[in-house]
Amino acid sequence: MEIHVNQHRVNTHTVYANRARMLISCPDGPGIVAAVSRFLHEHGANIVQSDQYTMDPEGGMFFMRVEFDLPELTEALPKLEQDFGTVAEQFRMQWHISCVSRKKKLAIFVSKEDHCLVELLWQWQAGDLDADIAMVVSNHLDMKEYVESFGILYHHIPVTPETKPEAEQRQLEVIDSDIDVIILARYMQIISPKFIEHYRNRIINIHHSFLPAFVGGKPYAQAYNRGVKIIGATAHYVTEELDGGPIIEQDVQRVSHRDDVTELKRIGRTIERVVLARAVKWHVEDRILVHENKTVVF
Amino acid sequence: MEIHVNQHRVNTHTVYANRARMLISCPDGPGIVAAVSRFLHEHGANIVQSDQYTMDPEGGMFFMRVEFDLPELTEALPKLEQDFGTVAEQFRMQWHISCVSRKKKLAIFVSKEDHCLVELLWQWQAGDLDADIAMVVSNHLDMKEYVESFGILYHHIPVTPETKPEAEQRQLEVIDSDIDVIILARYMQIISPKFIEHYRNRIINIHHSFLPAFVGGKPYAQAYNRGVKIIGATAHYVTEELDGGPIIEQDVQRVSHRDDVTELKRIGRTIERVVLARAVKWHVEDRILVHENKTVVF
Amino acid sequence: MEIHVNQHRVNTHTVYANRARMLISCPDGPGIVAAVSRFLHEHGANIVQSDQYTMDPEGGMFFMRVEFDLPELTEALPKLEQDFGTVAEQFRMQWHISCVSRKKKLAIFVSKEDHCLVELLWQWQAGDLDADIAMVVSNHLDMKEYVESFGILYHHIPVTPETKPEAEQRQLEVIDSDIDVIILARYMQIISPKFIEHYRNRIINIHHSFLPAFVGGKPYAQAYNRGVKIIGATAHYVTEELDGGPIIEQDVQRVSHRDDVTELKRIGRTIERVVLARAVKWHVEDRILVHENKTVVF
Amino acid sequence: MEIHVNQHRVNTHTVYANRARMLISCPDGPGIVAAVSRFLHEHGANIVQSDQYTMDPEGGMFFMRVEFDLPELTEALPKLEQDFGTVAEQFRMQWHISCVSRKKKLAIFVSKEDHCLVELLWQWQAGDLDADIAMVVSNHLDMKEYVESFGILYHHIPVTPETKPEAEQRQLEVIDSDIDVIILARYMQIISPKFIEHYRNRIINIHHSFLPAFVGGKPYAQAYNRGVKIIGATAHYVTEELDGGPIIEQDVQRVSHRDDVTELKRIGRTIERVVLARAVKWHVEDRILVHENKTVVF
Repeated sequence: MEIHVNQHRVNTHTVYANRARMLISCPDGPGIVAAVSRFLHEHGANIVQSDQYTMDPEGGMFFMRVEFDLPELTEALPKLEQDFGTVAEQFRMQWHISCVSRKKKLAIFVSKEDHCLVELLWQWQAGDLDADIAMVVSNHLDMKEYVESFGILYHHIPVTPETKPEAEQRQLEVIDSDIDVIILARYMQIISPKFIEHYRNRIINIHHSFLPAFVGGKPYAQAYNRGVKIIGATAHYVTEELDGGPIIEQDVQRVSHRDDVTELKRIGRTIERVVLARAVKWHVEDRILVHENKTVVF
Repeated sequence: MEIHVNQHRVNTHTVYANRARMLISCPDGPGIVAAVSRFLHEHGANIVQSDQYTMDPEGGMFFMRVEFDLPELTEALPKLEQDFGTVAEQFRMQWHISCVSRKKKLAIFVSKEDHCLVELLWQWQAGDLDADIAMVVSNHLDMKEYVESFGILYHHIPVTPETKPEAEQRQLEVIDSDIDVIILARYMQIISPKFIEHYRNRIINIHHSFLPAFVGGKPYAQAYNRGVKIIGATAHYVTEELDGGPIIEQDVQRVSHRDDVTELKRIGRTIERVVLARAVKWHVEDRILVHENKTVVF
Repeated sequence: MEIHVNQHRVNTHTVYANRARMLISCPDGPGIVAAVSRFLHEHGANIVQSDQYTMDPEGGMFFMRVEFDLPELTEALPKLEQDFGTVAEQFRMQWHISCVSRKKKLAIFVSKEDHCLVELLWQWQAGDLDADIAMVVSNHLDMKEYVESFGILYHHIPVTPETKPEAEQRQLEVIDSDIDVIILARYMQIISPKFIEHYRNRIINIHHSFLPAFVGGKPYAQAYNRGVKIIGATAHYVTEELDGGPIIEQDVQRVSHRDDVTELKRIGRTIERVVLARAVKWHVEDRILVHENKTVVF
Repeated sequence: MEIHVNQHRVNTHTVYANRARMLISCPDGPGIVAAVSRFLHEHGANIVQSDQYTMDPEGGMFFMRVEFDLPELTEALPKLEQDFGTVAEQFRMQWHISCVSRKKKLAIFVSKEDHCLVELLWQWQAGDLDADIAMVVSNHLDMKEYVESFGILYHHIPVTPETKPEAEQRQLEVIDSDIDVIILARYMQIISPKFIEHYRNRIINIHHSFLPAFVGGKPYAQAYNRGVKIIGATAHYVTEELDGGPIIEQDVQRVSHRDDVTELKRIGRTIERVVLARAVKWHVEDRILVHENKTVVF
């Protein structure tokens, strides 16, 4: 069992018991950085990392990510959050604070292609993915034994055109309120608007092309037919528009006329798994802010 | 004058007076390579480089590029070509032989953006582009003085929606039969099917996006609005379908949310000029075979 | 067990029972391509792929790789090889023919880092690596259970400075004459000249830096201290000179001042496994010719 | 004359008359961001961009870059700088404020290779390099006419082993106190420690290899002989150690066995000019902080 094999690994993520991350979006205006950093300083927090970005200095949106250490974080956080309300209101902020020590819970949806799942499990096992993989959900049984060998729950929920609504209902039940983010690791099923609504900007899909080129099915065949010299993959949040959600990450690799569709798929598998793993990593590290149909990645 | 500045340069292209290149396309079948290499050997030619590719071993197309040295090439070539007719007929080949010492003649079409033209002139001047830039054709006067400082003809042919047919007629006249290939170095005008017919697979355009993403106008604005994490450029042969011709070369560069449209354009300029220059280099070195809507680049 | 999980996979490599590959190195001279292709044609072989390269047209080395189909290959090959002797002698060729259907046998040497081994096993399982992984050899027990779950032999041969000669002797015994190529998948032990002699140009190592930068130990720490903006990995054949053998493949990724040594290692792991997997794939597909300290990769 | 040709260009850099940039390095500690942002806010400045980085949260160095708008900047700056002294002293900061509207003055040193100079002049002309190219200094006359056609001063200062001290003295005189940064655009001469001392972290060199691989002369020949599969270029600040100064930027491109030294040089020229241009751009935009032998690039 792999789970034994890697027991010797020490998790490489130092436990930052008192570290938190704050994400802020608001209309830009003078004094935001000063207000936030003064607030944190006055509450005894020490900023260890801060990033900000203003979409357009004249009347645009302002985005900020602050990573800070606060003594006795668990006890102190409720008051900090309460007090921050005043600052947030003044600047009309959307904001959120998360504790680094509270790992995000992932549900990974798969179908029959295993490479993206294998990558995420390997990175998790290697200590490179700082999250809990709480369950795998699949419309097939193919990877059940493999997933369970890691001690991870495997929910087999078949989907047919007729049973789709019931299947999604069943998925929502097993996910419960416990899951922070859903990863479509080559799940190959379209998610209904109703389902998406429950997990707005919390469903990450990997599309096997350099979007917006080759939207829809069989993108490698499309790429081959178009004769492109570079192929790619795109990780994005799922929205109601097929392959149209906010792009988180993309990467590409050079190909040539010698590569047929089978070879493009083979090359593509490595791009897909690397791109999806990066997007998941950034999400669980609270590095992504979504504004309209675009992402800010700090 | 720049033309003086670089007089110290020795052209880095050794003059291969007896070197030729042969391009072949035909339905695949047994014995083609043997027949071609035997033919050349028996005619006293020495193969210095040979590339081949079969699109599909079962009944697909076969492509070949052979570079060879033949003593007294100029005198010997007519007979070689005549004799090769038998081989060509046997395998139903489309074929062409060109002498390396006979440089291809280029006409570069520009509008107002100068970066692609500047790059081609610089590479030409540096001895990296083994071709003759015979003329620049533009609908504007902006680069006249600059181009003429290289001793290159500059044809100013204004184009308006009303005068387009006359303008194209005038372009064909100045190009005459002398030009081998036309480079649209950000020319920004749509070429008519009639014009294209004269230069089938001999007009190279640079499109400022990673095709087929962002076909048409303002691709950097489209890319910005879609929030892509990578931008690119595409060099392709011009066909009747806008931005739909056979792709010769593409390249990309990573961007982030921090890059606005102006910055995307700035980054894109470097990709555009590099990609176009590569495509032109490969064309003048007879490295490209076109089959249907795709290229084989050896 | 993973081995069950993926039983559904059909091997994506079509069985080419009658396909063979020929590798040739010799001093360049006129008529080589013609002689080889005529020979194959006259023996009933059909060339499906051919690559050649001449290091220097004036008196350099000539390299060729030919892939061909020959009816009844197994029966016909001995005579073909015998007859080819005359051609080979004429041009003073070093040459070798291998049957595509006879998969190469791999021994993978590992120590404690598992990412390169996991990648090779995954690619093998996915049908992307057309070889037999015959055994894993390790100086540690860590991956025994994992490897055996694939039904692969695991030889645990501890190595200490004192027992090194005996350990290498034991390794040679378990490898026997059966193994075609040895993969050092982060094996972290220096191989003795005597051992190398048995597997000249058949031991592939992955070095975790962009060689020749950062030869020797702790290359990520060296890279961090030097403040490089790009890190890389290098797959090479092992020779007596540490990290000095012929380079097969390299790749890189951009890093920044934000990446500490731990992060460099994490990023590096993905480069290492991709680069090593490419090198192994090329080796087992007979794409690599070694000349002095360099490789020609077709 | 090119200088006429491009008169139509509108400089794409908006004039930010009231924008300034502040660079800070100091030992890390609590409250720095809060102190700086509060200080700026209380002095009427609006932060439009802020980046920070802590080398090691436990007792490491802290680096910060703040871009801010301040009404009536020119008049207000002296008092702002004076008042900031107290903050700076408290945290033992090294700091510097520069006005965006005051363009940095560049002296470009060249020898005989022109590609890096051509690139810088083209980017400057295109409005992509927000600096003043005050002069070109060369030990050769080759580019005099070309440089002067841009209206830029050309100082011809021959250098021989015997006259080197006098030549450097003469260089320092023509540079005077007026120049902010010196660009060695393939200058090919070693700079003396005495000269470096005058321009500590203000001399940028482009080295034509991926440092630390191939230090010293003829790096492309070294790369060819080592058989690398990727070549690169490195822009770095010049220190007393040859090719050993803090690295600002690096980039690479894939090559193959087919590329001889001439071709490596040709490919390398494009990498060199792109890498050098990026480094210069970042320097003039105050994006680089140097700490010991490494750079932080915001």
